[in-house]
Amino acid sequence: MSDPWQECMDYAVTLARQAGEMIREALKSEMNVMIKSSPADLVTVTDQKVEKMLLSSIKEKYPSHSFIGEESVAAGEKTVFTDKPTWIIDPVDGTTNFVHKFPFVAVSIGFVVKKQMEFGVVYSCVEDKMYTGRKGKGAFCNGQRLQVSQQEDITKSLLVTELGSSRKPETLRTVLSNMEKLCSIPIHGIRSVGTAAVNMCLVATGGADAYYEMGIHCWDMAGAGIIVTEAGGVLMDVTGGPFDLMSRRIIAANNKTLAERIAKEIEIIPLQRDDES
Amino acid sequence: MSDPWQECMDYAVTLARQAGEMIREALKSEMNVMIKSSPADLVTVTDQKVEKMLLSSIKEKYPSHSFIGEESVAAGEKTVFTDKPTWIIDPVDGTTNFVHKFPFVAVSIGFVVKKQMEFGVVYSCVEDKMYTGRKGKGAFCNGQRLQVSQQEDITKSLLVTELGSSRKPETLRTVLSNMEKLCSIPIHGIRSVGTAAVNMCLVATGGADAYYEMGIHCWDMAGAGIIVTEAGGVLMDVTGGPFDLMSRRIIAANNKTLAERIAKEIEIIPLQRDDES
Repeated sequence: MSDPWQECMDYAVTLARQAGEMIREALKSEMNVMIKSSPADLVTVTDQKVEKMLLSSIKEKYPSHSFIGEESVAAGEKTVFTDKPTWIIDPVDGTTNFVHKFPFVAVSIGFVVKKQMEFGVVYSCVEDKMYTGRKGKGAFCNGQRLQVSQQEDITKSLLVTELGSSRKPETLRTVLSNMEKLCSIPIHGIRSVGTAAVNMCLVATGGADAYYEMGIHCWDMAGAGIIVTEAGGVLMDVTGGPFDLMSRRIIAANNKTLAERIAKEIEIIPLQRDDES
Repeated sequence: MSDPWQECMDYAVTLARQAGEMIREALKSEMNVMIKSSPADLVTVTDQKVEKMLLSSIKEKYPSHSFIGEESVAAGEKTVFTDKPTWIIDPVDGTTNFVHKFPFVAVSIGFVVKKQMEFGVVYSCVEDKMYTGRKGKGAFCNGQRLQVSQQEDITKSLLVTELGSSRKPETLRTVLSNMEKLCSIPIHGIRSVGTAAVNMCLVATGGADAYYEMGIHCWDMAGAGIIVTEAGGVLMDVTGGPFDLMSRRIIAANNKTLAERIAKEIEIIPLQRDDES
């Protein structure tokens, strides 16, 4: 039997490239920045324009499919996660980077059927790196196969995470105290490029050993999640339990040993799930 | 009168490219990692080999010039900072990145005469980005002129800094509490790519508004420092006083307003100067 979702994946790659072109164009001009949940949670007309383009293109070609997009949810739509083929999209992952022209901005498209990730596309458009992952068929960057690192020793690991956009004092304190605990194990270091999707893709390339974060959303993880697993890595909840795409938290690691070791150190930040109204 | 140091600068660019080629080659193979001052302060044979190549090439061409190199100092040489033309070199800035193949690794060459920075060359070799700055003549990346951002409002700024390689509990706590104070102002965010030189060059491009760090060395700052100032930015001590290349600390910002605002928040970490024996 031929792959039922390959056509969708090819289309996703085409759309991501088109979206990346729009973002690169927008980076050349002045931008108007609006604030969402906190002074560090930003949105621009480009986020909205790119999402509209993606949404209308997908709806036209696949009218029966569902769609969850960051800006549609921000505009008041509910995140209803069903068994139907669902496109989960972040039009501009790394909006703060985009606003500052910090050179890591990604288009993230995840495709999920019966709540299982089928493929993911992450286009880091300033770097011109197209990351893809298809269930059972491996992960690639610009055509080159990806493989996570082999490191099992946390004291020799390099992690990626972010301070996040919450400016609530207790949240910030937990985020920093988690970094302190991990650094004190010790580990080699922590890097932050400012987009969840690119951070996860860096784990897929083997450049970082693991990524963890709390407070992100399904559209930050749905594209890169399968890229990590298809590169040989694992997804886990920060509690050490199974990963849940709607939980707003993740450990994406090269292997189970590192993921579990990180889960052991992390103090949980209480969050409202993406699928809770 | 013709520029007395232009020939040295051209030579520095050629050497940086040659060094970058050695690093890219080394990234293709397995590496042996050794530990320096802490489990997070690493060195490899590539650091040593690249520095030897740079040192011998410069000594052959400019036998009267002085030289301060990270690995020569690590091997026991003293940092003697005189008025003579002095090449200050980090053969591999971002050694931890290099060890992990995290894609930001730079060759940094600074050239100082009478303790004044004359030119700087930073070659981010995985990205193939050649950053240069020459006193009075501007800063460039791959031939394109650089300009810092215009942001004066700290609450709309994006900063770059690092957790650093110290694993002393009190140092780590101060590093994190400084991040907490800055985030709480609030600011847009903090990014960390894992090399001081590239972080500073990102300020020069306008992608980040300011960089600060304590615990780094003169060879981490000497190349990129003049790239920042020639892109229109400022260098300042973390106390708010004048920048001192041997002090092991820096604020490199787009302008004085942001630099002073950052200085106001930062708690100082006591450090032994580079030129103290």
